[in-house]
Amino acid sequence: MTDVPALVEQARAGRPRAVARLISLVEGASPQLREVMAALAPLSGNAYVVGLTGSPGVGKSTSTSALVTAYRRMGKRVGVLAVDPSSPFSGGALLGDRVRMSEHASDPGVYIRSMATRGHLGGLAWAAPQAIRVLDAAGCEVILVETVGVGQSEVDIASQADTSVVLLAPGMGDGIQAAKAGILEIGDVYVVNKADRDGADATARELNHMLGLGEARRPGDWRPPIVKTVAARGEGIDEMVEALEKHRAWMEEHGVLAERRRVRAAREVETIAVTALRARIGDLHGDRRLGALAERVLSGSLDPYAAADELIEGLTNGG
Amino acid sequence: MTDVPALVEQARAGRPRAVARLISLVEGASPQLREVMAALAPLSGNAYVVGLTGSPGVGKSTSTSALVTAYRRMGKRVGVLAVDPSSPFSGGALLGDRVRMSEHASDPGVYIRSMATRGHLGGLAWAAPQAIRVLDAAGCEVILVETVGVGQSEVDIASQADTSVVLLAPGMGDGIQAAKAGILEIGDVYVVNKADRDGADATARELNHMLGLGEARRPGDWRPPIVKTVAARGEGIDEMVEALEKHRAWMEEHGVLAERRRVRAAREVETIAVTALRARIGDLHGDRRLGALAERVLSGSLDPYAAADELIEGLTNGG
Repeated sequence: MTDVPALVEQARAGRPRAVARLISLVEGASPQLREVMAALAPLSGNAYVVGLTGSPGVGKSTSTSALVTAYRRMGKRVGVLAVDPSSPFSGGALLGDRVRMSEHASDPGVYIRSMATRGHLGGLAWAAPQAIRVLDAAGCEVILVETVGVGQSEVDIASQADTSVVLLAPGMGDGIQAAKAGILEIGDVYVVNKADRDGADATARELNHMLGLGEARRPGDWRPPIVKTVAARGEGIDEMVEALEKHRAWMEEHGVLAERRRVRAAREVETIAVTALRARIGDLHGDRRLGALAERVLSGSLDPYAAADELIEGLTNGG
Repeated sequence: MTDVPALVEQARAGRPRAVARLISLVEGASPQLREVMAALAPLSGNAYVVGLTGSPGVGKSTSTSALVTAYRRMGKRVGVLAVDPSSPFSGGALLGDRVRMSEHASDPGVYIRSMATRGHLGGLAWAAPQAIRVLDAAGCEVILVETVGVGQSEVDIASQADTSVVLLAPGMGDGIQAAKAGILEIGDVYVVNKADRDGADATARELNHMLGLGEARRPGDWRPPIVKTVAARGEGIDEMVEALEKHRAWMEEHGVLAERRRVRAAREVETIAVTALRARIGDLHGDRRLGALAERVLSGSLDPYAAADELIEGLTNGG
C-alpha cells in the first residue's frame, strides 16, 4: 500500500514522481483512490484552469508551451494535461508535441502529463477532472488542459476549464468550420495562431463577424476577444496571457468563476455516481437477486418495471 | 386516461387497434406505462419468439412473409415486429417491405408493427422487449422479429429471441463477411435464401465449413442447420419451419429455453433500472441536493467520491 499522506506532501513539495504516482492512482481506479481523493479535497480549488482546444495543426502544443514560458516568467507553478481522445496510435504526433514541450522538461516548476482515452470506467470525462485535482492539490497555480480536435469529448473537457481558449489558424479553421464544430459556443478567448501567414486577418475578421451574430449581449457580458499570435516565435503570447487574466478578473467580478466551478463540481459528482451505479448493476449479473427477480417476471407474478424498482431499492440498501 | 383493462381484453380478442394502442403506450413511456405492464405481466410468456436478421437485400421481409403464411396454415396467431435501427429516412425501403407483407394485412390472425430507433429512453433495446410483451399478451403464439442489417443493436435485439435466424444470399454475405459481422455466434438456424441463384451451394458449403471451425461441440449440443430457400416462391419454407420447431424442441428438452428467457428477463429488468436511474440523476440537475454537494466539494470539506455516495443514497431514499 502506498503511503498517501507522504505522497501528497512530496507532490506539494514539487516532486514530479509523486505527482505522477498520484495521477496513476486516481486514473487507474486503484483501491486507494478514495483515500487519495479524500486527502486531496482540502488542498484543491486554488488553480486557474485554462483549456486549449482546436483542430490538429493549429499549433496547440506550441501555444501551450509558449504559455508555460510566460507563466513561469511570472513565477507561477504550471501543470499541463495533454489529452488525446483519439486512439493510442496517434502516438507519433503526440511524440512530436512532447518534443516541442521538452524545453520545460527540466523545470521543476512545470509538470506535464499526457492522457489518452484508454482509461476504463467513464473514460476521459471521468479521468481528466481527477488529474486536474491532483495537479491543483500539488500546488500548480495554472493548469493548462490541451485537447486534440474539437468533438463532443473535447467540448466536455473544455467544460472542465475556468477559461476556454479556442485556437484557429489561417486557412484551416475558418468561420464556417468553426460554427459547424460548435466552437463558437465554448470559447472565452479566441486565438488566431500562425498570424504571419496569408489569410490571418481574414480569419480573424470572419470569426469576429460570426461571434457578433449571436444573440444580443447585455451590458457587462463577456465578449470573447480574438488574439493573433505566432506561438513558434513567442509573438502575441503576452497579449494572450493578458486576455486570459482579463477573463479571469471578469469572471471573479461577476461571480461567474464560482458558478462555473459549482457546475463543474456537480458534474463531477454526477459522473462518479453514474459510473458507480453502472458498476453496481454490472456486478449484479449472475447475482441471485437479479436472477430471482427475473424468475418472478417470467412467471408473470411481477412486471419488469416493478422488478426494476426492487432492483434499484436493493442497489443502495447494501448493494 | 385509457381504460387499460378494456384495452387488454380487446387486444386478446384480436382487435388490431387495441394492440397498436398498447404498443404506443409502452414505447412512448406514457404515464400509464406501468399500469399497462402490470396488466400484461400475468398474460405473457407463452409466445415463441423468432428473430430474423441479415444484410439488406437477402430477402428478410419476403422470408418473414412466407413464414407468416406457413404458421397461419398451422392455425397459429402471428405477430411481426419489423425493427429498423437505421434512420427514419430509410422509409422508402421499409415501405417496399410493407408492400410485400400486404397479403397478410387483412388477416385478423396476423399483427404487423414497424419500429424505428426514434424512441427515446433506452432506444430499441428498451422498446423492443416491451412491444414483444404486448404481442405475447395479446395472444400471438409466434412472434417474428425482423431486424435490418447486422450490427451491435441487431445482435442485442437477436438476444430477445428464443430462436435466431440468420439469413444470407449467394454472393452477398459469404462466409468471411458473416464471420466479420459476428453472425456465426448468434444464429440458431441459418438460411441461404435465393437458393436458385448461382453460388448458393458455395455459400452454404462455406458457411457449413465456418460453423464447423468453432470449438468442439459436446454430444447433445445444437448444431445450427443450414436451410436453402427461395422465399419469393415459397420454396424451402416448410424446411425452415421444421428447423425452427426442431430448435424449439431441443431447447425445451435441454432447459435452454427457460434459461434464455431468464437471461432475457434479467436483461430487461436491468435495462429499465439503468434507464430509471439515469433519468433520476438527470432530474437532479439544478436540484438543491446536487448543488449542496457541489458546494461542499468546492469548499474542500467533501471529496467527490464521498459526495457521489451521498447522491446515490439520496436517489433511492425518496429520490
